[in-house]
Amino acid sequence: MYHKLFSDNLIDQIKQKKSLICIGLDPRIGGSGAKIPQNIMERVKNNYNDAIWEFNKEIIDHICEITPVFKPNIAFYERYNALDALKKTIDYIHEKNSLVLLDAKRNDIGSTAEAYASAIFDNFKADAVTVNGYLGSDGIAPFLRYVPEGKGVIVLIKTSNKSSGEFQDLFSMSIPDIPPSGIETTVEKGLLVRNYIQMARLIKDWGENPNFVGEGNSFGKFGYSNIGGVVGATFPEQMKLIRKEIPRNFMLIPGYGAQGGTTKDIINGVNDDGLGAIISASRSIDYAYQKSPYKDEFDETEFGAAAGKAAEDMRIAINQELEKSGKIAY
Amino acid sequence: MYHKLFSDNLIDQIKQKKSLICIGLDPRIGGSGAKIPQNIMERVKNNYNDAIWEFNKEIIDHICEITPVFKPNIAFYERYNALDALKKTIDYIHEKNSLVLLDAKRNDIGSTAEAYASAIFDNFKADAVTVNGYLGSDGIAPFLRYVPEGKGVIVLIKTSNKSSGEFQDLFSMSIPDIPPSGIETTVEKGLLVRNYIQMARLIKDWGENPNFVGEGNSFGKFGYSNIGGVVGATFPEQMKLIRKEIPRNFMLIPGYGAQGGTTKDIINGVNDDGLGAIISASRSIDYAYQKSPYKDEFDETEFGAAAGKAAEDMRIAINQELEKSGKIAY
Repeated sequence: MYHKLFSDNLIDQIKQKKSLICIGLDPRIGGSGAKIPQNIMERVKNNYNDAIWEFNKEIIDHICEITPVFKPNIAFYERYNALDALKKTIDYIHEKNSLVLLDAKRNDIGSTAEAYASAIFDNFKADAVTVNGYLGSDGIAPFLRYVPEGKGVIVLIKTSNKSSGEFQDLFSMSIPDIPPSGIETTVEKGLLVRNYIQMARLIKDWGENPNFVGEGNSFGKFGYSNIGGVVGATFPEQMKLIRKEIPRNFMLIPGYGAQGGTTKDIINGVNDDGLGAIISASRSIDYAYQKSPYKDEFDETEFGAAAGKAAEDMRIAINQELEKSGKIAY
Repeated sequence: MYHKLFSDNLIDQIKQKKSLICIGLDPRIGGSGAKIPQNIMERVKNNYNDAIWEFNKEIIDHICEITPVFKPNIAFYERYNALDALKKTIDYIHEKNSLVLLDAKRNDIGSTAEAYASAIFDNFKADAVTVNGYLGSDGIAPFLRYVPEGKGVIVLIKTSNKSSGEFQDLFSMSIPDIPPSGIETTVEKGLLVRNYIQMARLIKDWGENPNFVGEGNSFGKFGYSNIGGVVGATFPEQMKLIRKEIPRNFMLIPGYGAQGGTTKDIINGVNDDGLGAIISASRSIDYAYQKSPYKDEFDETEFGAAAGKAAEDMRIAINQELEKSGKIAY
């Protein structure tokens, strides 16, 4: 079943697959850490496009039935000159009846933002994209024009990294809100809030503005917006505050697993209806074959099966936490 | 002459070419507005990579002697699947002894930011890149690690677009700075400042931090940092304030020409030594052949010469304004 709007398609996938997981596809080649297995590199004679495509295909095959949305980060494909592999990967994910969120964190203005939006939605055929909202609505509107075509836009709010507070945690307010005196009054009134809250408020407005998303496209049939926000699993308290600000916008929650976020942490991003969040993991799934406990069970040639097991473990752990809190949607 | 640091190479170019201009190379194909001439499209049988390469080469040939730095915006190359043309263009600019600032506004964290930095500096061989600082130092540090290799990093501060104030103009302060009462005192003390000023302050710190840029690489021999900031020509008053915050960081000033910025507006970004700013224009130069007064003098086949004349006019207009204000460096 294919709906008109991204949020409806996403929710359908979630309900059908009983899963809130979003799996990153971030190919890494060489070095001592996480990487594509040596046997693949040899088989394809070190052709990066071929190696990445083989690697991704195997992982997709093992997890597509429990993965509503895949999240390739374009940085890795740019690094390895492997945009062809990215295209093939996206087409294959669609063939396998899953959605693609292209993690690109794009941002620019006017016709340049239009060019990025066209590259991502027209060329790569992604279903959704991550963007950076620092430039204001001029930078977001060209992406939002694709909402009527079933596309979604996910804006950075509170990122999962350690130094995200340097800028995102500054206390801020808009000019007309500054009262003649008294910071405390300002805080009490909810006027002086942190930058990440301001960004969440902008996202809410952008997603409901028919000038940007087209008349009647603000919310899907499940009541969710087609614009969402990135909120790191590493900041569960901030997540609660953001959830209150944007109850009908999906959160993409990175930082689970490798970065230290737990199922307890991410539960604050999920609404009582069991929706409103997808939880992403990349390295801990893609390269599970290199890590305990999976490396004991799977060898290098079984990296796909290892990823499948790791993804299923993640799905179950999240579902258990959801059930405990009475938030499950399926 | 090739120096170790980006700021020194940039200043050498500026002095040698007696020019503060930075010309965007933003290929546009089809439609009714600015676009690559029809005769090129026919000659290359609509092959986008070939068309863009031919177009760029002709423009570079006509303006490289007065252009210290070219600024291709990668969005257009992504849109037209023409990253090969981008690579050839960058190599050719280097052959012609000019610098390349790749306008990409990249941002991500950790190993993903490393992947972007590698794509831009190792694959594309750009001399500098634009980035978005919303994610804090985690997102910037991987780019700054290339400073010792002669690379530069330009962070968005106050962008030239109309809606840039939605977020960048919010008044903000850091947590420990909040006094028990009195907003006005806070403003007077310079603690409550707008987000773009906060970003400028972060940039200053990042550029001087040896952990990021390597010991002894904070400033070049001309006393300028290797990290700069984008400040739109459309906001001259804000530019003055930012100039005071970051006197030793270069500003990239877009918005001249097509977006309405004048030579009078940009002068606030230039220091008394005639340095500290480069002024960018793209459409008004690349497609001068379609616009008055150039379209009367040049036909479609002479688009390169038209760009050459438009760039020279821009260079002269800026230099006249610099002379008037006693700020010229060459």
